[in-house]
Amino acid sequence: MMNKSRLEAFSDGVFAIVITLLILDVHVPKVPYDQLPQALLSLLPNVFSYALSFIIVGLYWISHHNMLLLIHRVDRPTLWINILLLLFVGFIPFPAALMAEYPLHTIPVVLYGCALLASNAIGYAAWLYAATNRRLLKPDVTDRRIRAMHISFLAVNISYVIAIGMAFVYVPASYAIFVFVIAIFVIPKPWDPPANEAREVQAGQAG
Amino acid sequence: MMNKSRLEAFSDGVFAIVITLLILDVHVPKVPYDQLPQALLSLLPNVFSYALSFIIVGLYWISHHNMLLLIHRVDRPTLWINILLLLFVGFIPFPAALMAEYPLHTIPVVLYGCALLASNAIGYAAWLYAATNRRLLKPDVTDRRIRAMHISFLAVNISYVIAIGMAFVYVPASYAIFVFVIAIFVIPKPWDPPANEAREVQAGQAG
Amino acid sequence: MMNKSRLEAFSDGVFAIVITLLILDVHVPKVPYDQLPQALLSLLPNVFSYALSFIIVGLYWISHHNMLLLIHRVDRPTLWINILLLLFVGFIPFPAALMAEYPLHTIPVVLYGCALLASNAIGYAAWLYAATNRRLLKPDVTDRRIRAMHISFLAVNISYVIAIGMAFVYVPASYAIFVFVIAIFVIPKPWDPPANEAREVQAGQAG
Amino acid sequence: MMNKSRLEAFSDGVFAIVITLLILDVHVPKVPYDQLPQALLSLLPNVFSYALSFIIVGLYWISHHNMLLLIHRVDRPTLWINILLLLFVGFIPFPAALMAEYPLHTIPVVLYGCALLASNAIGYAAWLYAATNRRLLKPDVTDRRIRAMHISFLAVNISYVIAIGMAFVYVPASYAIFVFVIAIFVIPKPWDPPANEAREVQAGQAG
Repeated sequence: MMNKSRLEAFSDGVFAIVITLLILDVHVPKVPYDQLPQALLSLLPNVFSYALSFIIVGLYWISHHNMLLLIHRVDRPTLWINILLLLFVGFIPFPAALMAEYPLHTIPVVLYGCALLASNAIGYAAWLYAATNRRLLKPDVTDRRIRAMHISFLAVNISYVIAIGMAFVYVPASYAIFVFVIAIFVIPKPWDPPANEAREVQAGQAG
Repeated sequence: MMNKSRLEAFSDGVFAIVITLLILDVHVPKVPYDQLPQALLSLLPNVFSYALSFIIVGLYWISHHNMLLLIHRVDRPTLWINILLLLFVGFIPFPAALMAEYPLHTIPVVLYGCALLASNAIGYAAWLYAATNRRLLKPDVTDRRIRAMHISFLAVNISYVIAIGMAFVYVPASYAIFVFVIAIFVIPKPWDPPANEAREVQAGQAG
Repeated sequence: MMNKSRLEAFSDGVFAIVITLLILDVHVPKVPYDQLPQALLSLLPNVFSYALSFIIVGLYWISHHNMLLLIHRVDRPTLWINILLLLFVGFIPFPAALMAEYPLHTIPVVLYGCALLASNAIGYAAWLYAATNRRLLKPDVTDRRIRAMHISFLAVNISYVIAIGMAFVYVPASYAIFVFVIAIFVIPKPWDPPANEAREVQAGQAG
Repeated sequence: MMNKSRLEAFSDGVFAIVITLLILDVHVPKVPYDQLPQALLSLLPNVFSYALSFIIVGLYWISHHNMLLLIHRVDRPTLWINILLLLFVGFIPFPAALMAEYPLHTIPVVLYGCALLASNAIGYAAWLYAATNRRLLKPDVTDRRIRAMHISFLAVNISYVIAIGMAFVYVPASYAIFVFVIAIFVIPKPWDPPANEAREVQAGQAG
């Protein structure tokens, strides 16, 4: 028997560490104090990359979490797809640091977009595996909710493909798309899961 | 349905990692052994910054924990406010390291104070969101407790604003205020939550 | 009384951190932009080492998890064997980084193989301790499952011994064996544990 | 109400991260391959420091865990003592790295011993706070067990004081004491807690 709660705990750990390691790429400058303002200004791309990546990985965590709420069991393939997902999410700090080093050039932004696209595509693969014939889904998941998940994954994937393409033309447009995808997620949608009762309440109901 | 316990687990992970990464800014000196005492003395600001930041982030963890004890459900905006809170808490290691590098100068202390202020202000925003019309609160939370939370957040915010201002006048005064805010938190207050029965007992009661 | 769930939580934390620290060995190159493609190509061994080690440590996490599912209690020796296991798993990032630095030389691959072998051998020791006279096993674990665990541990150990030996002859053959062991694990086997009901369902059954 | 399980989760996170960060002090040498054996031999103190510190922090984790098993509730002072304990445990990677850099000199070993002593002394303070008038203890904790905890903390504290003293006379003797303290812990003792039923069983009993 595979344990869904331990899968969640392990994934939460990886997401939490990835998100927190991002700050390690903002290095303290070693300059005389009178050059510090200048040096701090030159770190702004790093701070932007930190904030952007922090929110995007946070968004993946929320997606991961929302998907598992629809799933009532996990099996061996789920475990392996999850390891692959974490492999790509765990890779994000590298292109994020690269992008901070070369903020206005094509290659780092393409790599960053590819890491995001790969993470999201694996997430979609996990969803396709779980939702095909409702293999792992809870019985109360509606067809409308399933369709909404498909649309959401596809919209994000297409956005990232466009962002990667734009990096060859005009790099700031890629950044605009990365921010736009975050905005899509933050705006409430009609199929969003409603708020939830706390654990204590659940425990009380289970007893 | 959003799961309060997974939000706690993820946040606990981020707090635990931020608090532990702080030691990475205390670098081992690479000098001949007879110069080691000198080199270690020059690390004292780093050790002070480590201890101060460790306790402050620990304090945020306790606050986060106390707030969630008053809340009986989490919704999508809560999740996003929480991600923003973690974004600012996760940023603290950078100004902490900067402050250790330039311990008696204005800019690093101002940045450090701003990171603390931003973290605390987002925490207050989370509280305002949860407490307005008792939106997410447990029914047994008293009005007195709600007022105490408001006062506590405001007092800390005002202290940090003063600390930031003092950094332009006399940097050690800012440090004194940072330590003073910790002292405020450590001193028991009449509205403090009483001690709690252990998990085993709760499980027993729920069954 | 020793608590199995806290042992799991601590081990999950160590596995999650080890797996995520691996990316720190992929350093951002500091070269002029026109030399970046060259510099990124020279990082390919690091990326390969990252992916290989991520999946292998993920595999250890799954094994650890599967073993604990067969065990119904933990005692003091289990705790110490577990600490030793984590000690060797926590060491893996070092030979992984070494292997990325010298990808086609014998010594790093031997060290990497030894770290994998030691981790797996300690895992086998844990299993021998738990399974001898069914000391810590749940009553419903079948003899066939016990035998399958023995075979699985021995097959992996022998594979790693061969990989270490091959590193003295032809280094790429060692890499092939490392990848082959992963493939063994990914392929479903008749004695694999069946899929599991989610936590909510378990809680409902327990109540 | 303060939550014992979240205190455990946060502490587990810090212990797991501290233990895993230790490997970051074993740096990959950047030398031509024919000088690699030499370079790896010079890393042996780092590997020894890694293994010693890993086991000692693992030991603190087990102690922390055993102590919480005797405690049935946590209050605000417990939280603060716990933060202080984690502050000192989180500091251990620094003297550990220092000791690896200067393995046969007095100062690093003294600092290392002081960090261990401080961690253990705070642990003892936590125990004194919990056990005085059985303030936080579960009702079924025997007087014999309480006495055994006192003796255990005092024995380790005295050992560390001796190890610190020996560092001024003959550094290897300090190492011998550090290893000896581990041995004390590994050897089973009559007052050791007996093995425990798994979580599933507890849940079943609670329901």
